Amino acid sequence: MESEARRSEFDRIARYFAPLAESFPGAFGLRDDAAVIAPSAGAEFVITTDTIVAGVHYVGDEAPGLVAAKLLRVNLSDLAAMGARPRAYTLNIALPESIDETWLAAFAGGLADDQARFGITLIGGDSVSTPGPAVFTLTAIGEVASGRALRRAGARPDEIVFVSGTVGDGALGLRAARGTLAGLDQKAAAALIERYRLPRPRLELGQRLAGLAHAAADISDGLVADLGHIVAASGVAATIEADAVPLSSAARAAIGAQPELRETVLTGGDDYELIFCAPETAADAIQAVAKEIDLPLTAIGKIAEGAGVRVLDAGGTPMTLTQSGYSHG
Amino acid sequence: MESEARRSEFDRIARYFAPLAESFPGAFGLRDDAAVIAPSAGAEFVITTDTIVAGVHYVGDEAPGLVAAKLLRVNLSDLAAMGARPRAYTLNIALPESIDETWLAAFAGGLADDQARFGITLIGGDSVSTPGPAVFTLTAIGEVASGRALRRAGARPDEIVFVSGTVGDGALGLRAARGTLAGLDQKAAAALIERYRLPRPRLELGQRLAGLAHAAADISDGLVADLGHIVAASGVAATIEADAVPLSSAARAAIGAQPELRETVLTGGDDYELIFCAPETAADAIQAVAKEIDLPLTAIGKIAEGAGVRVLDAGGTPMTLTQSGYSHG
Repeated sequence: MESEARRSEFDRIARYFAPLAESFPGAFGLRDDAAVIAPSAGAEFVITTDTIVAGVHYVGDEAPGLVAAKLLRVNLSDLAAMGARPRAYTLNIALPESIDETWLAAFAGGLADDQARFGITLIGGDSVSTPGPAVFTLTAIGEVASGRALRRAGARPDEIVFVSGTVGDGALGLRAARGTLAGLDQKAAAALIERYRLPRPRLELGQRLAGLAHAAADISDGLVADLGHIVAASGVAATIEADAVPLSSAARAAIGAQPELRETVLTGGDDYELIFCAPETAADAIQAVAKEIDLPLTAIGKIAEGAGVRVLDAGGTPMTLTQSGYSHG
Repeated sequence: MESEARRSEFDRIARYFAPLAESFPGAFGLRDDAAVIAPSAGAEFVITTDTIVAGVHYVGDEAPGLVAAKLLRVNLSDLAAMGARPRAYTLNIALPESIDETWLAAFAGGLADDQARFGITLIGGDSVSTPGPAVFTLTAIGEVASGRALRRAGARPDEIVFVSGTVGDGALGLRAARGTLAGLDQKAAAALIERYRLPRPRLELGQRLAGLAHAAADISDGLVADLGHIVAASGVAATIEADAVPLSSAARAAIGAQPELRETVLTGGDDYELIFCAPETAADAIQAVAKEIDLPLTAIGKIAEGAGVRVLDAGGTPMTLTQSGYSHG
């Protein structure tokens, strides 16, 4: 690498990213070889990481602040699924020349906003040049009381399967953003696109579920796929009722216009809601949590012995899902 | 992202990377939303991260195992500079279609070898596709007794500046690999190339320096530049004697043939030795460490009040260095 390129990376870090690390003493202003961080007393760290590529994971013409916020939030959603509280993150950027200072400033601005919103701070990273598309890697560090992380493994027969919020808005929002969703008014389309563009990590829910839920995941690959991960890790089966899956009014309108979207809702990804399993005895406590944090938590099915995920239609007949449930944005 | 692409990523992770995480319970076989890890009692975490791009940070025709090992080792070198012991790492890969299974298997093999060598384990990551060149991000987690991390800030006037091993081999090795180094026999050239290709992170030294050194960095940007980082962070100046800088016999031969390489040695990067500052009273203890770990530790200069780094030639005259000292491989 040329000396000038290296200098411009130092400048870039100092200008746009060091301010994001200012409040964290162990980040040393991003000017040391590494950051120092310790979990709170009695806690341990939960670490997750995601990489996005321009033109693959986002179109490239989105507002830079939204790209930043989504990257941070999909990681926060993983922390939520483990019941963790956000603490810090590192950010690695590989940038083509076409990304200018204005873009970077807006990207950093999106991070600054979400740092304040979610109580998380940048503590390190790297900045390099690439002849290819922009690539961003964000690694989030959360903490959880020792031994209390929510796992995917842990679901047991007869437990209830719950989901938070509404399901399918992410996948429908992607279609709305691409203009392939018919029969929706502008407001409904905008609501779905917003859900796709700006996930709302269910951090408070995740933290409340420690001790109540026995298994959890966030819905990133799709309801059926992510429940599939839970049952595979737990060595059990699940049956869910399609009609019990909670839908937003926008999703209901979309399905009204195109009934085949019913399946998209079940198999599409990018919802970033939590799906979790808990014994019947915890149901009341779970509904109390729902009320307290003002987020619907809906029972959609049950765990049984066996393997795999079955989805029953309104008549109780198993549905054949032709989509795989790994369809990402 | 298409469902098949997503599936092939799951397969890729299961085949090549899950085995690297097998021995770490909190990695959950790379099958959960995140990993769980806690520092040992009385310790805190040190976190560092680097990104490399094919064609920018490596040529692309290197043995994949070497690419993997270098990426891991430059991060371990940062842990060494903080006095930390390696614990775990995450790995994010963005791969073009041109990277095949054979390449990936060899890349993972390089990681497996170095995991055993350095006592570190994969605990998480992400795998995505890119239409551009391969991009790898590795984030290393080490640990250090609480409050004992070696910092860049902390050098004080009258302290001695030490370096480990020999300096300049990395930058000369890059030139040797490119065939631009004259007058070297094959053995000397091979020794330099090896130093460039495969850094030896000074982990044991870093851990021994806690309590002895007051400031430290690894030499990645170049001796003068990295000492510059230390003095800038510490608010002091440094003067070093060019003739005191320890050279390998291969580097001496290269300079013998091309005297202008004298400056390359001082300003070139990629040495991954440690440069550190300690009071005169610690000098005996430092030489005892050198003997114990069988690694030369050489006094090359002194800290003073002021700012910046001065390099004196054999006659005591300040040298004008035309290279910036940020020249990377």
